[in-house]
Amino acid sequence: MSSVWFKKHFFRSGSSANPGNAESLRRGVEQQLPAAPLYRRPKFLSGVCSGERLPGRRPIYCPPRDRPLQWRTGYAEVINAEKSEFNEDQATCCQISVRRREIGMEEEQDWLILCSNQYLVGYYWALFDGHGGPDAAIIASNYLHYCIKQKLEEVVEGITEAQPPMHLSGCCICPSDPQFVEEKQIQQEDVVIGALENAFQECDEAIGQEMEATNQSGGCTALAALYLQGKLYVANAGDSRAILVQKQSVVPLSSEFTPETERQRIQQLAFLCPKLLADEFTRFEFPRRLKGDDVGQKVLYRDYSMAGWGYKTVEKADLKYPLIHGHGKQTRLLGTLAVSRGLGDHQLKVIDTDIEVKPFLSCIPQVKVFDFASHNIKEDDVLVLATDGLWDILSNEEVAQIGRSFLDENRTDPYRFSELARCLVHRVRGKKNGHQWILDGNSSASYDDISVFVIPLYNRDEDC
Amino acid sequence: MSSVWFKKHFFRSGSSANPGNAESLRRGVEQQLPAAPLYRRPKFLSGVCSGERLPGRRPIYCPPRDRPLQWRTGYAEVINAEKSEFNEDQATCCQISVRRREIGMEEEQDWLILCSNQYLVGYYWALFDGHGGPDAAIIASNYLHYCIKQKLEEVVEGITEAQPPMHLSGCCICPSDPQFVEEKQIQQEDVVIGALENAFQECDEAIGQEMEATNQSGGCTALAALYLQGKLYVANAGDSRAILVQKQSVVPLSSEFTPETERQRIQQLAFLCPKLLADEFTRFEFPRRLKGDDVGQKVLYRDYSMAGWGYKTVEKADLKYPLIHGHGKQTRLLGTLAVSRGLGDHQLKVIDTDIEVKPFLSCIPQVKVFDFASHNIKEDDVLVLATDGLWDILSNEEVAQIGRSFLDENRTDPYRFSELARCLVHRVRGKKNGHQWILDGNSSASYDDISVFVIPLYNRDEDC
Repeated sequence: MSSVWFKKHFFRSGSSANPGNAESLRRGVEQQLPAAPLYRRPKFLSGVCSGERLPGRRPIYCPPRDRPLQWRTGYAEVINAEKSEFNEDQATCCQISVRRREIGMEEEQDWLILCSNQYLVGYYWALFDGHGGPDAAIIASNYLHYCIKQKLEEVVEGITEAQPPMHLSGCCICPSDPQFVEEKQIQQEDVVIGALENAFQECDEAIGQEMEATNQSGGCTALAALYLQGKLYVANAGDSRAILVQKQSVVPLSSEFTPETERQRIQQLAFLCPKLLADEFTRFEFPRRLKGDDVGQKVLYRDYSMAGWGYKTVEKADLKYPLIHGHGKQTRLLGTLAVSRGLGDHQLKVIDTDIEVKPFLSCIPQVKVFDFASHNIKEDDVLVLATDGLWDILSNEEVAQIGRSFLDENRTDPYRFSELARCLVHRVRGKKNGHQWILDGNSSASYDDISVFVIPLYNRDEDC
Repeated sequence: MSSVWFKKHFFRSGSSANPGNAESLRRGVEQQLPAAPLYRRPKFLSGVCSGERLPGRRPIYCPPRDRPLQWRTGYAEVINAEKSEFNEDQATCCQISVRRREIGMEEEQDWLILCSNQYLVGYYWALFDGHGGPDAAIIASNYLHYCIKQKLEEVVEGITEAQPPMHLSGCCICPSDPQFVEEKQIQQEDVVIGALENAFQECDEAIGQEMEATNQSGGCTALAALYLQGKLYVANAGDSRAILVQKQSVVPLSSEFTPETERQRIQQLAFLCPKLLADEFTRFEFPRRLKGDDVGQKVLYRDYSMAGWGYKTVEKADLKYPLIHGHGKQTRLLGTLAVSRGLGDHQLKVIDTDIEVKPFLSCIPQVKVFDFASHNIKEDDVLVLATDGLWDILSNEEVAQIGRSFLDENRTDPYRFSELARCLVHRVRGKKNGHQWILDGNSSASYDDISVFVIPLYNRDEDC
């Protein structure tokens, strides 16, 4: 997809922006630059007002009951506790229609639209958690599914044949080509995974171009679930999370990517390309920031090749700020970012330096596949996707228990998946108590933006 | 440990070599260089003759019954099927005594030797599978346990305290130092893991120095099991394998590191440092080597960031030889090596080029920990360590089944662990049939060197 196509569809340039809309003028027009994307909530929430506005509570938003989401998906969101002006989470929920083959002429295209069996239909849900501004998450929520559609169409022969052909054209230059593909055990789903990986990369590049053109900054995590041909693909770049809740089990369908979980990858890059640290940071990890008194002492440390800990005699250079510092949720990459994968952040530099953060980030998702053919899905089985605002407070097991008992108690309610999403957000948003936000038991509530999808998996090909 | 110390203990220099020993003169003396290490079989096999020399069979060697190994460990080995002059596998089995604290004066040292509770006693088993000559495996089998002993002694305060101190000296520069260590969840076992990682690195450096000094080449894989303070640490760099066989389950205690399993790490290095490929190789993976006819076609490929497969339009540069090529056991790194981790290979270059293989190799083991405190160990539970010669033919499950039924049928035999090791080697070595080596069912036997340890885990602190 060209950048021109992209702009035409998703952006209003400075000259064509509606001068009556204050939002569209926010930064762009004043600076004679193309305008930043309009701030908005997810499209499926348009026109929604919160029913509840209690003092000391942040309102929860859900889609209206008369416009249900695909598969009767439940959704709920709440803004952060006065951390930023905008809710930096974004969400998308839509179908993705993949043309089964290349189309030559326009007539043919019209004909294909009438014949829906010429399309593979996929179902898509995605959450984006923005940082440093809402823009990257908005672009990603508008654009990632187009990238996925395009990348799947580019390789459609590879995902519709029982075994992907060595050549996309179907030709066989070497008679044993199918054998080579078989020996490598390359299957349909590997080509879908490859398409998802490439789609994230394409979306990241587009965000980089558009953010530069509109002089914006910021980035976002991306968690996308795609149901296609009887399989669920969960692609994750960041610290959102997807779990499958069944009666007897909870199956994690994503892993988090943070400076803590990706320490060795990040340290190794700094080892191979030390210039990236500009002599301002040390790549070694220590339990705490070292001080002058530590010099000459042997202290606990880890380098890129180590899963365990060793002791290192401290030199002056070790007093520099660590490449990865802090622990748990407070861990930061280059003192700046709390995630190590995601989209955007092309312009992000360490404050007061020329050190770029982007080289240490990856925009490539990890993709996990869940094959419905080999699992017995029951009526109350649901997929829960949520941004870290939920998981900071509730464990997988707690979410599963809440989900199971809620669905069991509300068996006849047709809106129960939506109500479960609301219930989960309700459980963690808390209420204001002085300067703090607390839960009923007085423990700390989530200060972050919180977004939750609850996707029922039982009647999964049922349109609504 | 200094290189001088190392030479004094393990090598005979050219001048001091026994002139009557043809082996010691093999290459070194003729070239006026220090001599290569003497070729030998594992020390615990010294004086052993095979009881069986049947035509068309390779003899199996086991330790003599009157010199049992620690814990009544079983061991058996067989040389490869005329692949090389020497059996390139090596094995070590010994105790490792770790001094509990630094010793200042010689008197004190004498006193400590008398007081064995001043030592931590560890038990160690290791297998080394050499390639490109037997030397690296011999050095590693002589030296790795000394490196481990030394690295453990260097950090001994970190592995004897309930929680490793931030400073090895025990001082506390910042009052909350213990809290930082706790927050990072650093435990005794992390310091043992770090010591093992550093020991492999030190051993690799020593091998590099000695191989250069004696003008030798070659490398080896290394699989080491260390029992210390109630925990089993299995450190693996290469394609040997360790499994724990219990009545109801088989627990893999290592993963293999080959160009196939480490594809993304290796491709990423080539992406970051393209000069390493000297324009002779392509870092992309394709199902087969591409030909002129493929140029312009879209073919299946994978790059470093991809777990899935995509389609790429073939350019002329893609016709170069792939960085990683082949599949299964035939996969090679730079057309040269079948493993991606191990010790040695410092001098290894791609044939007829100046391209070094070493930068793509890692000498760092992956360490897995098995804590006996949280497992109920039964009488017939054994740890099986073996080189790839065994695992090429038998799966984990097959080895476990053979082991369970053999031990059950030979319940009263005090040599049953040794006999089980012999039985396992016997099952895969096969017999000669024309130019082939086949098993009883006519399937292919193992052509490789085969070495197997069977370590009983029930009476594990019992000396013998």
